[in-house]
Amino acid sequence: MLNETHDPSLHSWVASAQVPGCDFPLQNLPHGVFRRQGSSEPWRGGVAIGDAILDLAAAHAQGVFSAAADSAAQAASAASLNRLMALGPAAWSALRLDLSRLLREGAPQALQLRACLFPQAQAEYAVPARIGDYTDFFTSQYHALNAGRIFQPQNALLPNFKWLPIGYHGRASSVAISGSAVRRPQGQTRAPDAATPQFGPTQKLDYELELGVFVGPGNPRGTAIDIDAAEQHAFGLCLLNDWSARDVQAWESMPLGPFMAKNFTTSISPWIITLEALAPFRVPLPREAGDPAALPYLQSTQVQALDIQLEAWLTPPGAGQATRLSRTSYRHAHWTVAHMLAHHASNGCNLQPGDLLGTGTQSGPTNGEQGCLLELSQDGRTPIILADGSQRSYLQDGDTLTLHGWCERPGQARIGFGSCVGSVLAAA
Amino acid sequence: MLNETHDPSLHSWVASAQVPGCDFPLQNLPHGVFRRQGSSEPWRGGVAIGDAILDLAAAHAQGVFSAAADSAAQAASAASLNRLMALGPAAWSALRLDLSRLLREGAPQALQLRACLFPQAQAEYAVPARIGDYTDFFTSQYHALNAGRIFQPQNALLPNFKWLPIGYHGRASSVAISGSAVRRPQGQTRAPDAATPQFGPTQKLDYELELGVFVGPGNPRGTAIDIDAAEQHAFGLCLLNDWSARDVQAWESMPLGPFMAKNFTTSISPWIITLEALAPFRVPLPREAGDPAALPYLQSTQVQALDIQLEAWLTPPGAGQATRLSRTSYRHAHWTVAHMLAHHASNGCNLQPGDLLGTGTQSGPTNGEQGCLLELSQDGRTPIILADGSQRSYLQDGDTLTLHGWCERPGQARIGFGSCVGSVLAAA
Repeated sequence: MLNETHDPSLHSWVASAQVPGCDFPLQNLPHGVFRRQGSSEPWRGGVAIGDAILDLAAAHAQGVFSAAADSAAQAASAASLNRLMALGPAAWSALRLDLSRLLREGAPQALQLRACLFPQAQAEYAVPARIGDYTDFFTSQYHALNAGRIFQPQNALLPNFKWLPIGYHGRASSVAISGSAVRRPQGQTRAPDAATPQFGPTQKLDYELELGVFVGPGNPRGTAIDIDAAEQHAFGLCLLNDWSARDVQAWESMPLGPFMAKNFTTSISPWIITLEALAPFRVPLPREAGDPAALPYLQSTQVQALDIQLEAWLTPPGAGQATRLSRTSYRHAHWTVAHMLAHHASNGCNLQPGDLLGTGTQSGPTNGEQGCLLELSQDGRTPIILADGSQRSYLQDGDTLTLHGWCERPGQARIGFGSCVGSVLAAA
Repeated sequence: MLNETHDPSLHSWVASAQVPGCDFPLQNLPHGVFRRQGSSEPWRGGVAIGDAILDLAAAHAQGVFSAAADSAAQAASAASLNRLMALGPAAWSALRLDLSRLLREGAPQALQLRACLFPQAQAEYAVPARIGDYTDFFTSQYHALNAGRIFQPQNALLPNFKWLPIGYHGRASSVAISGSAVRRPQGQTRAPDAATPQFGPTQKLDYELELGVFVGPGNPRGTAIDIDAAEQHAFGLCLLNDWSARDVQAWESMPLGPFMAKNFTTSISPWIITLEALAPFRVPLPREAGDPAALPYLQSTQVQALDIQLEAWLTPPGAGQATRLSRTSYRHAHWTVAHMLAHHASNGCNLQPGDLLGTGTQSGPTNGEQGCLLELSQDGRTPIILADGSQRSYLQDGDTLTLHGWCERPGQARIGFGSCVGSVLAAA
């Protein structure tokens, strides 16, 4: 539902928020946790606006928030946003409305709040919540098809894919904030023609272009989440790179799925874009003739897809020229945020505020929309050529991988996700 | 290494600790978190002795601990044992020595400490740590073989099994303390002859007879754990029942492994038995002619198996006669605690104090040693007959499943695990 906070004609008194292409205009207002780069200042919650961060602890101390938004503003200023996430949509919305009004051109509090701005260029970020559990899904049919064609050509799309959002549990401890180094993992692999496996640095280090979803209010163990109410359990979205060692994955995954191939690092972007900010970018679910009707617990006339543009760029070592590897949209995902939440809780599994869901690699229907190197290079059979003329089947040491995400639509303000960056260090 | 705390001739001034068959003699001293049943008392740490619990907060307040054990005693009295787990083996050992001396017959502090005892019969227990991540392994070759014969007879033991401890990430939020009800989960299943899946209560609810391992000191992301030092990262063991919905598992598991089939509830017993208490029960690794030599990162002359007796009992509704379903030993597991820890960290995945590892279902080489109903009933093809004459392929509503574990060896005190109990409630 759109409200005054989505009005594209609104401008902020923070001038940089109006710069064309800015990820963080007044209509976005994403939440994160920051402090001064390299300092030992306490971590605290903030909201991105233009090239600055509104320090919510400082703003709250100014007494600028309304009674309706006060407790959310306090929770949003903490070093972990779990308490904010637990409050639910009414509180999030009240805070968003206050922030929109406070940061709007002509706001009488502008002078007071200018002192609460902190430059993003001088900030470092933390994982914005204590992540109790991290679950990664497999929602893109194009990723499933592309990967399936490589590994089981006779049966590329598995029979369960269009019936349920396939998922698996990931590792919460190794979720790292954008900018954290990614050390090339060691692991067990077996070459296709080898009798025995070996242990050493992965030769098939891949990225995965995903979105992350932070869970809001949870559900008690033994209860489910109704599909129609599922989005009320989603606080917001970020970019997520589920780094993967494909050779490790191939050897270890039978019969229990990926494990060491994925749990060494998962990178996320620092800013969480609320579902409310994304409301103008809803589009119909992508459904094809022949797709089965969803089982009732996954069926809702209210569920829509989100048209979030996604890109992955590779910068070779030595700060060479970046090459765009992937360019797609989250609109192509067969399963949405609401589907993931309703399915996850359908057996009584308890979700908790701050839990993280990954959408799985996002790929689209056309060439160039593949969301990982496994697909792009056909597992190394067709290496890709970078802008500097070098080739890649998989990532090399020193490569920097950057994800971007944003929403644009005529008549709406641009809503950006910022970026999720990671550089590959040589194996230890 | 054995020391004075293992001396089987030691008696406690808590008389019940000497009752034959007692799980908690003076040589055990397991840690847990408790309070008065049904109260809103604060949770606090304690140590089981006979039929009582030594309230460590109360004991600590008496000033009875030595300087060497004082900080461990304080950490062990908290509502979550994560801080104790982080301290490491030297601190755990110092605390164990103090406790052994304080609870020993003739201890001058006996009178003071008698006031710090709490009857187990009046206690309720909490999950004893904030579990950051829960990982379940697949360490029993007999379970792997038995399950493999049902699902892929031509290739019962997968080629990776003897090269690495296969594992997958589980759900931390739904780890529940023994005694918690287990609601039969709903889920998607597809009958073998059906064209489409359906959603409803699982028809194949199973137990899994496992041990849990609580992680002690962790490792920073990007670093590994040496196999020779791996056990120093293990605080202790408990019983674990990884409830499973086999029909859900069969439909959802391709290609990413079990997810909703497992994450609705995992039950653990309340007492954590330290590795030091288990030291007298080490036995050689079970290795057969033809087994491959471990890769160097999993190779150690120090690694041994643990001979822990394990049982599962089923009590039908109405408190009928219990039937023993499973009886085996952890000694048969191909992969040990040290192997799981060293493998888990071998790619730089960071483990943290309080993380939980499951050993996977424990089955042995002979009939009756199968650790779950999938194996025992051959996925329902050969239902088992209970003591009351009724049959089971899988668990029915009202069934109570109880796990027991203990160690016995001539010349050593019996070290018991207590029990891990769960009753099946009808689906919501």
